[in-house]
Amino acid sequence: MVVIMQIGVDEAQIQNVIERLNAHGFDVHRSSGDQQTVLGAIGVKPDFDIRHIRLLEGVSDVFRVTAPYKFASRDWKKEPTVVDVGGVLIGGDEVVIMAGPCSIEDEDQINRTAAFVADSGGKILRGGAFKPRSSPYSFQGLGEPGLRMMREAADKHDLRIVTEVMEISRIETIAPYADIFQVGARNMQNYSLLKALGRSGKPILLKRGLMATISEWLMSAEYILSEGNPDVILCERGIRTFETYTRNTLDLSAVPVIKAKSHLPIVVDPSHGVGLRDKVIPMARAAVAAGADGLLIEIHPDPETAKSDGPQSLYFEQFSELMTQIRLIAHAIGRSIEEERATAH
Amino acid sequence: MVVIMQIGVDEAQIQNVIERLNAHGFDVHRSSGDQQTVLGAIGVKPDFDIRHIRLLEGVSDVFRVTAPYKFASRDWKKEPTVVDVGGVLIGGDEVVIMAGPCSIEDEDQINRTAAFVADSGGKILRGGAFKPRSSPYSFQGLGEPGLRMMREAADKHDLRIVTEVMEISRIETIAPYADIFQVGARNMQNYSLLKALGRSGKPILLKRGLMATISEWLMSAEYILSEGNPDVILCERGIRTFETYTRNTLDLSAVPVIKAKSHLPIVVDPSHGVGLRDKVIPMARAAVAAGADGLLIEIHPDPETAKSDGPQSLYFEQFSELMTQIRLIAHAIGRSIEEERATAH
Amino acid sequence: MVVIMQIGVDEAQIQNVIERLNAHGFDVHRSSGDQQTVLGAIGVKPDFDIRHIRLLEGVSDVFRVTAPYKFASRDWKKEPTVVDVGGVLIGGDEVVIMAGPCSIEDEDQINRTAAFVADSGGKILRGGAFKPRSSPYSFQGLGEPGLRMMREAADKHDLRIVTEVMEISRIETIAPYADIFQVGARNMQNYSLLKALGRSGKPILLKRGLMATISEWLMSAEYILSEGNPDVILCERGIRTFETYTRNTLDLSAVPVIKAKSHLPIVVDPSHGVGLRDKVIPMARAAVAAGADGLLIEIHPDPETAKSDGPQSLYFEQFSELMTQIRLIAHAIGRSIEEERATAH
Amino acid sequence: MVVIMQIGVDEAQIQNVIERLNAHGFDVHRSSGDQQTVLGAIGVKPDFDIRHIRLLEGVSDVFRVTAPYKFASRDWKKEPTVVDVGGVLIGGDEVVIMAGPCSIEDEDQINRTAAFVADSGGKILRGGAFKPRSSPYSFQGLGEPGLRMMREAADKHDLRIVTEVMEISRIETIAPYADIFQVGARNMQNYSLLKALGRSGKPILLKRGLMATISEWLMSAEYILSEGNPDVILCERGIRTFETYTRNTLDLSAVPVIKAKSHLPIVVDPSHGVGLRDKVIPMARAAVAAGADGLLIEIHPDPETAKSDGPQSLYFEQFSELMTQIRLIAHAIGRSIEEERATAH
Repeated sequence: MVVIMQIGVDEAQIQNVIERLNAHGFDVHRSSGDQQTVLGAIGVKPDFDIRHIRLLEGVSDVFRVTAPYKFASRDWKKEPTVVDVGGVLIGGDEVVIMAGPCSIEDEDQINRTAAFVADSGGKILRGGAFKPRSSPYSFQGLGEPGLRMMREAADKHDLRIVTEVMEISRIETIAPYADIFQVGARNMQNYSLLKALGRSGKPILLKRGLMATISEWLMSAEYILSEGNPDVILCERGIRTFETYTRNTLDLSAVPVIKAKSHLPIVVDPSHGVGLRDKVIPMARAAVAAGADGLLIEIHPDPETAKSDGPQSLYFEQFSELMTQIRLIAHAIGRSIEEERATAH
Repeated sequence: MVVIMQIGVDEAQIQNVIERLNAHGFDVHRSSGDQQTVLGAIGVKPDFDIRHIRLLEGVSDVFRVTAPYKFASRDWKKEPTVVDVGGVLIGGDEVVIMAGPCSIEDEDQINRTAAFVADSGGKILRGGAFKPRSSPYSFQGLGEPGLRMMREAADKHDLRIVTEVMEISRIETIAPYADIFQVGARNMQNYSLLKALGRSGKPILLKRGLMATISEWLMSAEYILSEGNPDVILCERGIRTFETYTRNTLDLSAVPVIKAKSHLPIVVDPSHGVGLRDKVIPMARAAVAAGADGLLIEIHPDPETAKSDGPQSLYFEQFSELMTQIRLIAHAIGRSIEEERATAH
Repeated sequence: MVVIMQIGVDEAQIQNVIERLNAHGFDVHRSSGDQQTVLGAIGVKPDFDIRHIRLLEGVSDVFRVTAPYKFASRDWKKEPTVVDVGGVLIGGDEVVIMAGPCSIEDEDQINRTAAFVADSGGKILRGGAFKPRSSPYSFQGLGEPGLRMMREAADKHDLRIVTEVMEISRIETIAPYADIFQVGARNMQNYSLLKALGRSGKPILLKRGLMATISEWLMSAEYILSEGNPDVILCERGIRTFETYTRNTLDLSAVPVIKAKSHLPIVVDPSHGVGLRDKVIPMARAAVAAGADGLLIEIHPDPETAKSDGPQSLYFEQFSELMTQIRLIAHAIGRSIEEERATAH
Repeated sequence: MVVIMQIGVDEAQIQNVIERLNAHGFDVHRSSGDQQTVLGAIGVKPDFDIRHIRLLEGVSDVFRVTAPYKFASRDWKKEPTVVDVGGVLIGGDEVVIMAGPCSIEDEDQINRTAAFVADSGGKILRGGAFKPRSSPYSFQGLGEPGLRMMREAADKHDLRIVTEVMEISRIETIAPYADIFQVGARNMQNYSLLKALGRSGKPILLKRGLMATISEWLMSAEYILSEGNPDVILCERGIRTFETYTRNTLDLSAVPVIKAKSHLPIVVDPSHGVGLRDKVIPMARAAVAAGADGLLIEIHPDPETAKSDGPQSLYFEQFSELMTQIRLIAHAIGRSIEEERATAH
């Protein structure tokens, strides 16, 4: 922690700050210039509330020297983390495509989708069975039977599964069906859930909260990592801003920022970021160009009749065209995306 | 729902939109002006995703006609709701003061605080026993023993209790000790929790999420109300903006907006809104002047040694002075605040 | 400037940063702890771009030690500035009320308004003659004849005048009619205009930009102060956030923040902040309770027919009632507002 | 305009709203459903302040039916506008690269940069001669001599020039040297300047304000278009959000949104958007992938010694590598970027 004293403070105020820092267990290193005194407080206390010092007489500003997170930072681990999901590697050279419907609706829907995802070069099937909806009057998901349908469909086409878990009490129910647990944006700071998932033994896809700074997001990853689970995949999905034409503002600059600050892989969900399918395609391409390690995309065999998020789901043909484009973009920046299967369409 | 067609669309596009609206179960009322056609879609479908229509060819814009919430709106209930908390009325003429420490730390701390709150004219004791902390390395609260201490302290001084419940699984534990369940800002969209609290039979204090619009906030209240619990107290506590001098930006204009849109009472928590005690006092005064039905304030017998949020907790003397000022302000706008007890200080 | 090195950097990287700091003219004070090295860069270079250092290998973070502004800061001048506008003091014990129409429309309108403002206890008349409008198709103001009408009306009722100047080329035209030049929110970073006003010899009311941090706002004040004009009055008028129920979010916490960071007086314009007259009244009261040194309020003899901003203008009776309330609120916090004239209404 | 009445209003309130709409010159089309009445107000009044109606008793909400801008909208002009800048076409199949230093510093700097831009496939040279700086103590530009240097350098290498104009009084000075006038983000709502540029006869590059919605941005374009200048190029350069790791949040979703709402071309400035050169490269790639019609990039022969914005300026080698990558990305989406000249490096 670095404490900047105001210009023109007297010695008694400086001494008082030093005493308080000592009382909180810090060693203090003083550096007085012509105009101003700066105090370096040495000692590792990640949960110290720096406002205690900011309020003292004569203090101008206080800065943390160390990030509040440790295991999530690149200082702690220099080489990038590659998460192995049953042989599918996230965070390596390949850009991994995860696709599927917002909600699992029936066997036919999830089977046709799984087949198309696999044929197009996707590796992971997404789909929700327990849906958190902002209206109490909306479709809330099929529950466990939906998960069973998704597991069968995924296995038939050699896909892995990512699905959301919203409550600790559901972890056990969902575990047999999921390869990756997804934490939704609204749960990004549900710390009890994060800790429980830190002990779950499965990779976690952690969505950025609508209102979360990158620092807070990494702090949430820390909750999982500090419980012993090293397999965290970050997922940018849009932040809230003053702009209203789009549902959220997809913050693609989070991709290079995360690459600099952390060793964790980062994927992008353009579907929730922009909310309308005609905007999803250009933003998916942009995410790959920005260096994302993967995409999470909503597709549906018949978006018009989808029970949730139809308007942001791609038609199969759109998904197919997108795959062709992003394969070229991945090559342009020295990465790759799985080819289509020969049998496809 | 009102659908605005683009200027210059052809009749086939208009017919297509009408057919789609009919297919979704809406009656359509067409109104064609010189330049533009507007379609009124009639039918009550609170969970219809208007993006289905926005995406159709020739559509310029789509607006909801009805608010997505019903029981929370003033259209549904004209007279203001007054929540009765064991005889303390929130939402009436009196401005109700709720105060106490961020965390319950020990018997002496909570007792001294309860005595001071009661003597100063406060009616409700606040205090946390299970603390959600953004760092996994911080103090996490005393748990149930803390609640027991708070209950005893409150009873001794005829105070009611508001305390946070963070998980469904804790509702039963906390219920015997609490008069009001508080839902924290991070849980504002934890819909399972909201529904469970809607069946709890106790008043709920619902904090506004850091990045929640007023409409989303009322939608969350709807989750509680629609389960049959009419006693929701809204609590403004600051929203996230680009400004960094303050922790959050306390949105006091939410007070008159809520008064216009809803019948529910609204209180203000200036402590979390601004985050430093010297800013808490003016903002607490401003909240009363803006018409808030109550305040939720952090105070501590010794803020410097508080285990959490000390820097935003008021000293007893500051709280006492604040009470004197806001009593006068309440009178200035035709409301009242309980007098000090004769025995006090 | 304080430079925080990453954990585990090697000595060569540290030496490189020290050399670069030296090359930019800074003395360097090194402080190496167990885990981390912190470098203090000593030397006053207000326009140094700290990103030069942030980009160097091994650097974790860089902080400014001194605020980028000097004359606007409380470090530089401890006692509050009181601006004397022809005998009306802004920044002293009295809360000064400035009121009037958005646009001057005709003699009768401005005269009736001036009379009412003066009788109610207002000291300064506001009104626009050159209107910046977001649509090119809207009423653009009466120009100089409007100013003349306002000056006559103000003089008749012993009021001072505040009016906006939007361009350097208009300063000379407006000067004979204005007692305070207002800089609008959109011009807050029009540096040429600020500098010219710094040489104008008149007090400046500097509105906060819709998108401006408090630090940037003080930096803009610095442009005026550094040209030798000490009479800057800050004016909070709402910032843009994600909330859409209100036009802007009035940031009343700016009042105590400015009081702590600067010696300049601060007034609040609730009319533009909330945009609808029924919200203006509670926010005006809240501003006084928060400690504002004055209010800038739009009123109109007939808001329904106003040529601009009618919906946010108060009716005379509303203004009168508001004055009664804020007079009591001012007293509650140890300040005052001018009494009504005996002859009034 | 569509007026939504509250549920349960009485007939007198509806009649009152209808009368007020008539008084403002609108024809009214009434549509009463079971629960609610909706009024369509017909008539083209782009500057009508809808708040007049929102404030009336019984009104729940009011929506504009027509966008406040006309000439900027795709409703008005279906085919995309291609701006011809001395034979360089912006808005066609080719993605046009504009590059150069933040400030022109001397002949050698601008010459070497122009040569490199041209050899790499860039078509337009950027550079500032009059610099608006947030600190009054920073380098303010070379003025007209700088423009002369830039013109010579551009002509030698067959480049066009884009440079900023900050004040009406400087238009004449700058005109002989510029092919495109740039309007900076801070001037986006400087309406007098926009109108003057609407009569300048040159293409205008209009940067998006830091806190401007897309609708406001198009409204500003309208100011230029409505004066008879059809050649407006929009430029996204980042908006302000709560995130602080990046200087601004580059809103790439603005690219597809603008393509849907307007016929005007849109380019992206990633340099100001992210503020640090290592983030500029991925975001420049992402902009092309998202469908931008061009890029505006800061490069400098020696960024470390640049007099302004060095930390966000690319080294020549970085620019060269970027060009190679974005050429492939442009091809991936069916567009092109000029090839390198045979003589280059």
